[in-house]
Amino acid sequence: MSARVLIVDDLLPNLKLLETKLSMEYFDVVAAMNGPQALAICEKGLCDIVLLDVMMPGMDGFEVCRRLKTNPATAHLPVVIVTALDEPSDRLRGLDAGADDFLTKPIDDTALFTRVRSLLRLKAVQDELRSRAMASCALGIGDPFTLAAADTGQGARILLVEDRPSAADRMATALSQHHTVTIESDPQRALMTATEGGFDVALISIDLDGVDGLRLCSQLRSLDRTRDMALIMIGETHGMARLTRGLDFGVHDYLLRPVDRNELIARVRTQVRRGRFSHTLRGAVQASIELAVTDELTGLHNRRYLDRQLGPLFGAATDEEHGLACLILDIDRFKSINDTYGHEAGDEVLKAFADRVRQHTRGIDIVARFGGEEVVIVMPGATLADAQAAGERIRQRVEAAPFPIQRGARAIAVTVSVGVAIRHAGDTSASDMLKRSDDALYRAKADGRNRVVAEAA
Amino acid sequence: MSARVLIVDDLLPNLKLLETKLSMEYFDVVAAMNGPQALAICEKGLCDIVLLDVMMPGMDGFEVCRRLKTNPATAHLPVVIVTALDEPSDRLRGLDAGADDFLTKPIDDTALFTRVRSLLRLKAVQDELRSRAMASCALGIGDPFTLAAADTGQGARILLVEDRPSAADRMATALSQHHTVTIESDPQRALMTATEGGFDVALISIDLDGVDGLRLCSQLRSLDRTRDMALIMIGETHGMARLTRGLDFGVHDYLLRPVDRNELIARVRTQVRRGRFSHTLRGAVQASIELAVTDELTGLHNRRYLDRQLGPLFGAATDEEHGLACLILDIDRFKSINDTYGHEAGDEVLKAFADRVRQHTRGIDIVARFGGEEVVIVMPGATLADAQAAGERIRQRVEAAPFPIQRGARAIAVTVSVGVAIRHAGDTSASDMLKRSDDALYRAKADGRNRVVAEAA
Repeated sequence: MSARVLIVDDLLPNLKLLETKLSMEYFDVVAAMNGPQALAICEKGLCDIVLLDVMMPGMDGFEVCRRLKTNPATAHLPVVIVTALDEPSDRLRGLDAGADDFLTKPIDDTALFTRVRSLLRLKAVQDELRSRAMASCALGIGDPFTLAAADTGQGARILLVEDRPSAADRMATALSQHHTVTIESDPQRALMTATEGGFDVALISIDLDGVDGLRLCSQLRSLDRTRDMALIMIGETHGMARLTRGLDFGVHDYLLRPVDRNELIARVRTQVRRGRFSHTLRGAVQASIELAVTDELTGLHNRRYLDRQLGPLFGAATDEEHGLACLILDIDRFKSINDTYGHEAGDEVLKAFADRVRQHTRGIDIVARFGGEEVVIVMPGATLADAQAAGERIRQRVEAAPFPIQRGARAIAVTVSVGVAIRHAGDTSASDMLKRSDDALYRAKADGRNRVVAEAA
Repeated sequence: MSARVLIVDDLLPNLKLLETKLSMEYFDVVAAMNGPQALAICEKGLCDIVLLDVMMPGMDGFEVCRRLKTNPATAHLPVVIVTALDEPSDRLRGLDAGADDFLTKPIDDTALFTRVRSLLRLKAVQDELRSRAMASCALGIGDPFTLAAADTGQGARILLVEDRPSAADRMATALSQHHTVTIESDPQRALMTATEGGFDVALISIDLDGVDGLRLCSQLRSLDRTRDMALIMIGETHGMARLTRGLDFGVHDYLLRPVDRNELIARVRTQVRRGRFSHTLRGAVQASIELAVTDELTGLHNRRYLDRQLGPLFGAATDEEHGLACLILDIDRFKSINDTYGHEAGDEVLKAFADRVRQHTRGIDIVARFGGEEVVIVMPGATLADAQAAGERIRQRVEAAPFPIQRGARAIAVTVSVGVAIRHAGDTSASDMLKRSDDALYRAKADGRNRVVAEAA
């Protein structure tokens, strides 16, 4: 994965050395000699990953990292702290500041490049999502970035796959402060537990007794149901080659034995936040897409959705010769509700009406606000009698209890008229059926309202 | 990148051998012993990549590949044909059937795994997009998949970076049949040309005189503006290690010298189609997102957009103490147009009205259909005089020429009334300003319509 790597170091020789090494690995290098410069480059979107020195005059690396990770515009950038500091407390400070990794000099180049590549690969996948989510954010539909930057990374579900009881206990105790932990010692059972879903992170020992833990990692990365779960390997320093292999095929991070309690907590937190960010982005894009076919007031589908689904449904019903019914529902004297109690009360009635309709339709029915106070229901597979019964059920439910308005301060009686029709063999398009429902609705109104009328036989 | 690899071979020993090798590389393996079985597995979405033997009884590998690549549900799956056939014509047949690569046995395992990994990495990025696009497709908003599967992969813009004049000429001639080709012999100039944009594919010699062509590849993969362009390296068989390195950092494909004319055409076509597929997916997701804030009839923004943008705009204007104006436009006696000429004519007038409004507003203005025959314009930075002038310009343009209805069969005179207001220092929210515009509009109507009225000073 080629990409733009930002190196931040106040010493020119260090900068040059790392620049040369990265350049030979075909990375594009950008350099900054202090914190503010680095922050500016990141904010302008001019790099894909940050390699950060800690000891710099003015703003130190921990502070740079903290600022990057709490700014919604830069929180997605992977940060690797690369420093001569080697106290466990430094390491922890880096991870607590949100760094994705903390590597102590002298750095093993292969380890560094493996790490950079693995972080970049994960970022490349996320970037596609991120640009779509940014588009929806720019249009004013939600802001997943601010949300994600504020996430504490707690309250996650963790799967711990470890067959050494004492190690498992120690880790579970540490993690249980912030998360819910499930322990599995057998990889087969772990795979089943994982696919049952709901885990944010799996911690996997790669030295399970007689079994290759890496195999479990690769399976979890391959399966549709577990692909989005973050994976952290647990291994020994002398098993670095296998850990590297794991990173290469998509494992997110690793911990070395003996596992440091605080490092464990910090690395899990980072993965929880990363996973949730992807999840939030996905949700934001999905929500924007759904918004396009949703009526904002009632939450029902809108006319755009009805228009686009009705044709295909009608075609399928015609081809497969099964039934298709259509109901048009219109709230009686809705204008007088608006005139008497105001538009807000009218909106309250519409919302409550939509809720009652939703409760009495099936998942496969299309229920769409057709405009104003009209709702259309399309029922695949239904006969005229089915549709009439459904219409009658809704009519009764509407009549049965008054509708609260003015935030519950009062309630008014509401009734609804319904026109029902089904697809005929001779229909050329869905609009023929729709027209007959509309005619039936007209008769329901003319006959005195608050009734269900089916098309003439 | 761990993933599910489907191996298709009718000979069990071949299957087992490849399965063992892939398994040792931590891939998940799925096997099929004939074409129909393979197609079923792919259609069910149970694999991420296909390794395909050619000579099978019944349906041969070429046919399996062709079917996968023309089916919208499976066209995105990378296919590598792995076979003992070694005639150039076989190779071409495979590539013509849409295969992403054609490898002849005995296979160099490293080469195969590099290829599989590179294809999977590209797919992982595309998959995120693909699932969003599938969601919008499921909701009935567009179908990029059918579109993409039907693309011929012709008519692309190709950048050829090659400093050997005869080779450049030969390749350009072959490609010019289907594409537009630009030749650059100097990598610096090539980089500039590429960033100017518009190329679908760059073909890059990695043995440029005195320069490392791989460096150019890595730069093109890193830069925002060229990141989505497909890259194909041109190299020598003895330079395989460097080609592999290119694949590892994200180059899409390679060709070996002497470049076979037909293979060149086939591989470029594959990359053109792949690139366009990503582009189409991106466009589909973007379009669905935009749909959520677009009024379907007029193409103007909808009320949802106005509601979500107005608050922030108002806040910014307040903080920075700059002007903000608001116009409400309402077509005069619109109901009588509907009653006299029918709803369709009303819709025609609304559309044409929206067009005229759009022509006389600036890019930074918000123009939204507020509901019915009302349009709201919000003008950042504008004074009351600016907004009045804009309103008056639109009023005149509406009055100046009659509006065609009934598809041009006749034309009717239309006028519009406009209410104008600006943000006041004491306003607590945008709705105060909106309310004053509405009051001004009311006066415009009361004073005889077809006029612009500003809020009382």
